[in-house]
Amino acid sequence: MKIIVDAMGGDNAPESAVWGGALAAREYGEEVLLVGRPETVEAVLKEKGLQDTQGVTIMPASDLVDMHDDPATVLRKKPDSSMAVAFKLLKAGEGDALVSAGNTGALLTGATLFGGRIKGIRRGALAPVMPCKGGQVMLCDAGANTECTAEMLLQFAFLGSLYAEKIGGVNRPRVGLVNNGTEDTKGDPLRKEAYILLKKAGDEGRLNFVGNVEGSMVPLGACDVAVCDGYSGNVMLKTIEGVAKFMAGEIKTVFMRNLATKLGYLACKKGMDDFRELFNQDKIGGAPFLGIAKPVIKAHGSSNEIAVMNAVRQAIAYTKSGMIDAVSENIAYMTVE
Amino acid sequence: MKIIVDAMGGDNAPESAVWGGALAAREYGEEVLLVGRPETVEAVLKEKGLQDTQGVTIMPASDLVDMHDDPATVLRKKPDSSMAVAFKLLKAGEGDALVSAGNTGALLTGATLFGGRIKGIRRGALAPVMPCKGGQVMLCDAGANTECTAEMLLQFAFLGSLYAEKIGGVNRPRVGLVNNGTEDTKGDPLRKEAYILLKKAGDEGRLNFVGNVEGSMVPLGACDVAVCDGYSGNVMLKTIEGVAKFMAGEIKTVFMRNLATKLGYLACKKGMDDFRELFNQDKIGGAPFLGIAKPVIKAHGSSNEIAVMNAVRQAIAYTKSGMIDAVSENIAYMTVE
Repeated sequence: MKIIVDAMGGDNAPESAVWGGALAAREYGEEVLLVGRPETVEAVLKEKGLQDTQGVTIMPASDLVDMHDDPATVLRKKPDSSMAVAFKLLKAGEGDALVSAGNTGALLTGATLFGGRIKGIRRGALAPVMPCKGGQVMLCDAGANTECTAEMLLQFAFLGSLYAEKIGGVNRPRVGLVNNGTEDTKGDPLRKEAYILLKKAGDEGRLNFVGNVEGSMVPLGACDVAVCDGYSGNVMLKTIEGVAKFMAGEIKTVFMRNLATKLGYLACKKGMDDFRELFNQDKIGGAPFLGIAKPVIKAHGSSNEIAVMNAVRQAIAYTKSGMIDAVSENIAYMTVE
Repeated sequence: MKIIVDAMGGDNAPESAVWGGALAAREYGEEVLLVGRPETVEAVLKEKGLQDTQGVTIMPASDLVDMHDDPATVLRKKPDSSMAVAFKLLKAGEGDALVSAGNTGALLTGATLFGGRIKGIRRGALAPVMPCKGGQVMLCDAGANTECTAEMLLQFAFLGSLYAEKIGGVNRPRVGLVNNGTEDTKGDPLRKEAYILLKKAGDEGRLNFVGNVEGSMVPLGACDVAVCDGYSGNVMLKTIEGVAKFMAGEIKTVFMRNLATKLGYLACKKGMDDFRELFNQDKIGGAPFLGIAKPVIKAHGSSNEIAVMNAVRQAIAYTKSGMIDAVSENIAYMTVE
């Protein structure tokens, strides 16, 4: 198996991307293609003492996509950028999956253009995994599609559920529809229509649909997959991040008040470290872009080498999982006439 | 001034509603009308030693609205319920403002039917205030309207801003449009259209519009008023509550690990109490229902007596503020031809 890593994408690239990619090759025994400026990539590998790592191949790309590039057009305008070259390798079958910490919009555009959607799937969905009480929850979609139809939400539910089952190892993933109340009749027309489709899929035993879930129920662990349109999913995702950051800051202030509280912190340090680990995005890896015919993983922009390594691990698991075939086999149940 | 309190509404009614209403009359020196079953209300007043409180009047209502009643029809079906009687008093001018911890949907329906919208305002908006870094933020709308137009979002912005200024005492409240990115061109068609209207109002100096705000920026204090449709505002509101609850539970686990961490907790107790106070909804009072021609405050369902007292304080401040006149005077700038 060959995993293509965009060596120039992300806030900490090329260092983290190259380092993390090489660590992954060493750790997981699969081939990793590092796409970027050869001299830059080589320099990082050397600096980290990883220049002779087995399974690492450098694929030259002279340019790069940055955060200011227009996502819709950059891959065409910069055909020699590391991301464009990475996608061309994916399309040509020279790699099985793609990992990038670069410009999200460009990655989504590229995934659809070069990876192609699975036949019958209307749109790809960005599906990050967040910590919640008792485990993790996948938000699907969390930003790829601001405008959705009920059929798209049904497809996001199936995609998220299959991912949670086949890659996350969750048995009968609980799928919830994010709504402004738990009653059947809640929501805007989109939610009401999606509820009917999801309920039917649940009744037929094709999804473990647990009904509408309110915003508060998602962090409290009510479902494994939270289905939303890309607009509200993005609002939810970032609200979770913002509240976590706000509260972590306030707790820090509590501990830093005086000598006694600082000693109190020392007593709790182990527990606080575990607590922080809960929200450590680096451990999770990246967000898969679901519905695309080849695995594409968006590592978060500020990924360090561990995050990139974990995103490669995730790409390997995704490639091995048979998830894309499973989507194709079940596509009839995800389509509304 | 007379504040009408629905004595039978809320999870802890009649006790909290009656007790809190009477405490408010004593504390703030304004008249409070307690609407409910006279013998029940009297019994609570007696139990709390508040039977002779100056300014408290009992207004009889033999029935009550509960959480299972259909919000759209209950006030018509139960004309003798405490909430229906409270609204009739408000409409008849026998009270200046109304406070209830009861069924939110019924309260919103009643506010529009009996209170009436301010001329030119399309819809009322439920606008709770949440803690954020450095202070508080008002979410407007957070659940009254799942379907919105751009004009409605513009109106929510003005309503929230005027409230924050006149009742919250915020100088030039910063108004943000909740969106899935900060760039001008982000969002679904509703957000894009609303952005143009808000930007124009900002450029004309009528609003302090700070642009699009992502979900993470709201808890981190980027604005005083966060403008959203009722669906996503409700998702955001409840996500904040859910994450706060989840994290508070995890922190508790950290402190309860062993003897050392328990001692650590004792050292930090004062700070942790302050931290908990941040998220204490009872202190804030309730959520105003903005855009209605008379002040209506929704105290949260699980309000205790302090929360009800604070909601009455808020109703008094709202009545005195001149906010409703200010909306009327500025309505031309809130209307799209």
